[in-house]
Amino acid sequence: MEMPLPPDNFHILDTTLRDGAQQEGLRLSVADKLRIAGHLDALGVTFIEGGWPGANPNDTAFFVAAAQELQLANSRLVAFGSTRKAGGRAADDPLTAALRDAGTDYVCLVAKSHDAHVTHALRTTLEENLAMVADTVSHLVEHGKHVFVDCEHFFDGYRANPGYALEVVRTAAEAGAEVVVLCDTNGGMLPSQMGDVVSAAGAVGVDLGIHCHNDTGCAVANTIAAVEAGAMHIQGTVNGYGERTGNADLTTVVANLQLKYGWPLLTDQQLAGLTHTSHAIADITNQAPHTRQPYVGHSSFAHKAGLHASAIKVDADLYQHVDPSAVGNDMRMLISDMAGRANVQIKGEQLGFDLSDRELAARITEIIKRREADGYSYEAADASFELLLRDELGELDAPFGIASWRVLTEHRPGDAEGDTYSEATVKLVAHDPELGPKRLAVVGEGNGPVDALDDALTQALVPVFGHVERFKLVDYRVRIMETGGTDAVTRTLIDMSDGDHTWTTVGVGGNVIESSWEALSDAYFFGLVKGYGRPQPIQ
Amino acid sequence: MEMPLPPDNFHILDTTLRDGAQQEGLRLSVADKLRIAGHLDALGVTFIEGGWPGANPNDTAFFVAAAQELQLANSRLVAFGSTRKAGGRAADDPLTAALRDAGTDYVCLVAKSHDAHVTHALRTTLEENLAMVADTVSHLVEHGKHVFVDCEHFFDGYRANPGYALEVVRTAAEAGAEVVVLCDTNGGMLPSQMGDVVSAAGAVGVDLGIHCHNDTGCAVANTIAAVEAGAMHIQGTVNGYGERTGNADLTTVVANLQLKYGWPLLTDQQLAGLTHTSHAIADITNQAPHTRQPYVGHSSFAHKAGLHASAIKVDADLYQHVDPSAVGNDMRMLISDMAGRANVQIKGEQLGFDLSDRELAARITEIIKRREADGYSYEAADASFELLLRDELGELDAPFGIASWRVLTEHRPGDAEGDTYSEATVKLVAHDPELGPKRLAVVGEGNGPVDALDDALTQALVPVFGHVERFKLVDYRVRIMETGGTDAVTRTLIDMSDGDHTWTTVGVGGNVIESSWEALSDAYFFGLVKGYGRPQPIQ
Repeated sequence: MEMPLPPDNFHILDTTLRDGAQQEGLRLSVADKLRIAGHLDALGVTFIEGGWPGANPNDTAFFVAAAQELQLANSRLVAFGSTRKAGGRAADDPLTAALRDAGTDYVCLVAKSHDAHVTHALRTTLEENLAMVADTVSHLVEHGKHVFVDCEHFFDGYRANPGYALEVVRTAAEAGAEVVVLCDTNGGMLPSQMGDVVSAAGAVGVDLGIHCHNDTGCAVANTIAAVEAGAMHIQGTVNGYGERTGNADLTTVVANLQLKYGWPLLTDQQLAGLTHTSHAIADITNQAPHTRQPYVGHSSFAHKAGLHASAIKVDADLYQHVDPSAVGNDMRMLISDMAGRANVQIKGEQLGFDLSDRELAARITEIIKRREADGYSYEAADASFELLLRDELGELDAPFGIASWRVLTEHRPGDAEGDTYSEATVKLVAHDPELGPKRLAVVGEGNGPVDALDDALTQALVPVFGHVERFKLVDYRVRIMETGGTDAVTRTLIDMSDGDHTWTTVGVGGNVIESSWEALSDAYFFGLVKGYGRPQPIQ
Repeated sequence: MEMPLPPDNFHILDTTLRDGAQQEGLRLSVADKLRIAGHLDALGVTFIEGGWPGANPNDTAFFVAAAQELQLANSRLVAFGSTRKAGGRAADDPLTAALRDAGTDYVCLVAKSHDAHVTHALRTTLEENLAMVADTVSHLVEHGKHVFVDCEHFFDGYRANPGYALEVVRTAAEAGAEVVVLCDTNGGMLPSQMGDVVSAAGAVGVDLGIHCHNDTGCAVANTIAAVEAGAMHIQGTVNGYGERTGNADLTTVVANLQLKYGWPLLTDQQLAGLTHTSHAIADITNQAPHTRQPYVGHSSFAHKAGLHASAIKVDADLYQHVDPSAVGNDMRMLISDMAGRANVQIKGEQLGFDLSDRELAARITEIIKRREADGYSYEAADASFELLLRDELGELDAPFGIASWRVLTEHRPGDAEGDTYSEATVKLVAHDPELGPKRLAVVGEGNGPVDALDDALTQALVPVFGHVERFKLVDYRVRIMETGGTDAVTRTLIDMSDGDHTWTTVGVGGNVIESSWEALSDAYFFGLVKGYGRPQPIQ
């Protein structure tokens, strides 16, 4: 299987901020966009397509802010727009002006290349469309821009009228476009269909790009097929964000080209930042990360079946197609009811415990299986898992014990619509290591029940454990799960941090208050057991 | 672009219940598996691989239950297992016996086909592995089974030692296997690499199958590439469930082959059940459906950008690669802050309102944009959207008005660990259409705060609106969203049903009680406004 050689010049153009932003439910502020651009630059993409200035006020503001604040070390910013309006002149077109004045050296224009779109959607003639391409491209080139042209609906257009589609490519190239990008805008292509079309466009003689959507589940494969047929410029989005089924996932395409074909597109260090980049951008966009995403997904190197785990201890390469650390991911041994002793033992060792005693490991495995049947999940909640281990090993000194708690949320007559007030009462016994048990009853307040309980727990523990002031709830995830039948089970995961460490606990209950209480009180419990929160010695 | 012709005989083997069950977080009861099998049968797959009897007690129980209860109209059940243990005899091997006695006519065996796995993982000789294949296959064939053989790690094995990998294929075929399935177990293949390997295996002369994993994001593409190279048997899972990045998504592969290549794998009616099958199985497995999933995803035909929506009104085929109804999905016009008047107007019309007045449509669009900036999402919550429309159109007669509400959740001293009790007080004025306003103050109880509030609302409304007894909360989804800064916003979506209709409302607030209250009270509000809950006339 011969590996294709990399082209001399290769472009990775990220369009998360422009095409990716079209995804259902995605809304990015200017601040979000600047942060995302920073992550993309750190990753090392060649181009960052920032948006459509003039058409979208948020995007216009982004380019203004970027000109003032955005320091890019690796990437170049690209402004996106369309060809001028039919019947006008690029020099007079306000959207062309916005593109020209966005402050970037690079611009990318979308042009119609499917005859039916020209006549039915734009409502102009095929000749005028070519003039729109030539005029807008040459205008921007004259003003010192490097121009890329996105040929929208190219593959459908080539199928319907190949001569016209190629004429659009040729016109763009002759007007000075540096790259002409073939777009599978409707996403309907299959990989084996790509080569002939890309080769035909390649005969025009201009550098080609590829822009795929995932409507047949083949966006990554189609992109690679186009590259194999000569494209030197790929477009996609981080995590495959985008309209409908999304754009080609740039993280997958880049990892494939670099790790399978050995192309040095990013430095090894940049590639090792792939997982972090994917997750950071998921956080900013507030999209739940896709756990089964290739390369960067939380599950993508996680070995579950007891069968595999015992073999992994022998030779990791037997069961992994690449070394996960190359993309900044980990091989994870999952604890689950399909796991054997091997998984629990490996995970225990990772946390610093010796579980080589087979009977002990078997007993803990049984407990885990039973808890999981109840709805607990230890795959993310390492702190809860460690508390369980310590308990079984007899290595757990309880820092406190709960007597009772309650929380009230109310909307009172006369309150503004939607406003509520929450108050929690917690009664516990704190075990002062020197002075012995101390009973406290406190009232906490907050903007919601979990906030109020968190406030109450802090107040109840601080008199004995002052450093608990530094414990902060940093993430909170709730999931309602059906366990079969009509009894829903709620699971809460909490991330808590003292500024130096972050730890995750899990709680399960019949409602969100119950499950949140368990995760919350365990988070304080764990932080105290580990001695977190105390100031670190000066290094 | 020449379309490949379908082979005379083509197998769709679904392994959701076996390989799919290896997915992180997936746990299926016997009842779940029977329900899933029913859906797969209705879809019309050729084979349903039900599990590994003898190795997994849950699977053993499934095959027993299936023999008694499962009536399959279209599909055949397959039992999965492995080759006999090294150094033994198939006739004496207990796992082989479990496979033989599982009550199915078809069995699928996994065999090692990568030399390093034979020596390092199985710890036996290459010759003995061939004997294990031959012995187990012929034993099962002698007992009247149709046998498929999964060649594990085939592609890596072929790369390392092509002669041995092909020898395994040949041995299986000569022992009587009807299909030999080439498995990309580590998922590391790219589509352009598939053809040569599959063709080489094809030269052996046995019918070939393909089983891919999605570690390079190319499982669907690799499966299709193998089919293009002659494979007549595809394996995958519904929704791509499976270990690590998952198996090839069977819904995508089948839709591609049927809609792009025109192969009549399922009847048109069965294919139109694809979306329903995908979503039903997601419900049973309790996996959040992937909104951007090709063909069946909630977003996969949803048109957002104002640009596209105006063109869709002209000609839907310009913007869709297939007709969504072919797979049982819908073209959805999304309401979002990127939408123009066109989207709001179309959606209003779908709900039965005339929004052709441009100024009215513009005003409603503005309100939607502002609400969305606050965290509301109307893409799923059609009932909340309709309430908003009715309010603007002056077509809203409020059935009730809320004075105050509160809810207490407590864990009392002596309660069993984890147990809580919730009690809610609601005071409202119900507008009896004949008798006028009636003030009620009631106490509700439940196993959680939302349950208790739901109970209280029902009790407060039933004296005036008796049919509210039929309103049931059927789904409840919470999401904590960062809107930028540290103020988290919680969004709740509620599905309510009266048995004939189901409607969805959205609530947003600073905490889960606030957002749930809004969605809940709006759900009752909407149900009353629409007159739901009243018994339907006999048809």
